[in-house]
Amino acid sequence: MSANNQLKSIVERIEKLEEEKAAIANDIKDIFAEAKGAGFDPKILKQVLGLRKKDASKRAEEQALLSVYMDALGMLAGTPLGNAAASQYSSSIRTPVDLDGDEAEEF
Amino acid sequence: MSANNQLKSIVERIEKLEEEKAAIANDIKDIFAEAKGAGFDPKILKQVLGLRKKDASKRAEEQALLSVYMDALGMLAGTPLGNAAASQYSSSIRTPVDLDGDEAEEF
Amino acid sequence: MSANNQLKSIVERIEKLEEEKAAIANDIKDIFAEAKGAGFDPKILKQVLGLRKKDASKRAEEQALLSVYMDALGMLAGTPLGNAAASQYSSSIRTPVDLDGDEAEEF
Amino acid sequence: MSANNQLKSIVERIEKLEEEKAAIANDIKDIFAEAKGAGFDPKILKQVLGLRKKDASKRAEEQALLSVYMDALGMLAGTPLGNAAASQYSSSIRTPVDLDGDEAEEF
Repeated sequence: MSANNQLKSIVERIEKLEEEKAAIANDIKDIFAEAKGAGFDPKILKQVLGLRKKDASKRAEEQALLSVYMDALGMLAGTPLGNAAASQYSSSIRTPVDLDGDEAEEF
Repeated sequence: MSANNQLKSIVERIEKLEEEKAAIANDIKDIFAEAKGAGFDPKILKQVLGLRKKDASKRAEEQALLSVYMDALGMLAGTPLGNAAASQYSSSIRTPVDLDGDEAEEF
Repeated sequence: MSANNQLKSIVERIEKLEEEKAAIANDIKDIFAEAKGAGFDPKILKQVLGLRKKDASKRAEEQALLSVYMDALGMLAGTPLGNAAASQYSSSIRTPVDLDGDEAEEF
Repeated sequence: MSANNQLKSIVERIEKLEEEKAAIANDIKDIFAEAKGAGFDPKILKQVLGLRKKDASKRAEEQALLSVYMDALGMLAGTPLGNAAASQYSSSIRTPVDLDGDEAEEF
């Protein structure tokens, strides 16, 4: 095959696949629209889909660490989930640093 | 000013600002490296920074809805946070559809 | 269908499509690797693919305008393409402002 | 410094820098709006800014290779720039494969 033909073949195959990819992306968009129409929040749905890519234990660990950081920054004050997270996780999660940090530490 | 000079001025001003922006982006990167060195998880830190851009009530609402969806999909089974979220939120959050959904509904 | 089941169905359909999309993205990546192996520059190939999405006249117009701007900024000095572009386009392209700009203009 | 205070300090410093970065991004946006108001095409301006990040010889080389690929794909037929590019570059640029490709080659 000449180089010209080889380049044409490459470009055409990529363009065909790009088209198929775009069609699928469109189908996904349609399902999000359907979900929204049924009362689901698309943004939260996207978060759920992202979280499902991680295994449950990794997910729980990250969620716990997130709660610890949020609590340390006073972002959970007064929320039921914050209270639950604070009481259930803050002592059990091992973080490299002591995020309860009542006494000053030197780094 | 000639059009050439105007274009030069525009391009130079943008490039100067782009440089300043890149320098700041670099400073931010350095702080993340410092945070990592001190034992904080950069990925969770980014999540915290994203969440801080929303007000507390919006954040709590989204977190609650996320828990409801995750629970509906069986993603919280057996986690303490899941149990807490399930017991505290599932009945109080108003979702457009009944996510407890014990009886079949027609849509 | 209960809301739970509806959510499950939505999530599963999206995940199935996401998988198909990822498989296609992978196929495209393979073709780029094949192209690189055959001596084509993947970055230039991407530019070509981007340009092919525009019709020929739009493409020529943009390329010409790009040459005019580059020439105005002294970016084409001494290149054969620059000389060609300068002689062939600079007078024929209608730009909102006079980019030859020999006399000072006031804006 | 306690871990809590350290986390607060990290988060606050990042947020301050993010604000500065956003302000600069806004200034850049304003200049693009000014450029558009003066008759310059923002999209072409962005291309010019991207090209200015490469040195002139690299830029000329990429532009030449782009012309060779476009010519091989019949994308330059009938354009003056295409004709110029074709006559000036197609024989002088060394590509790993023979893009003039008159005789079939085996790969």
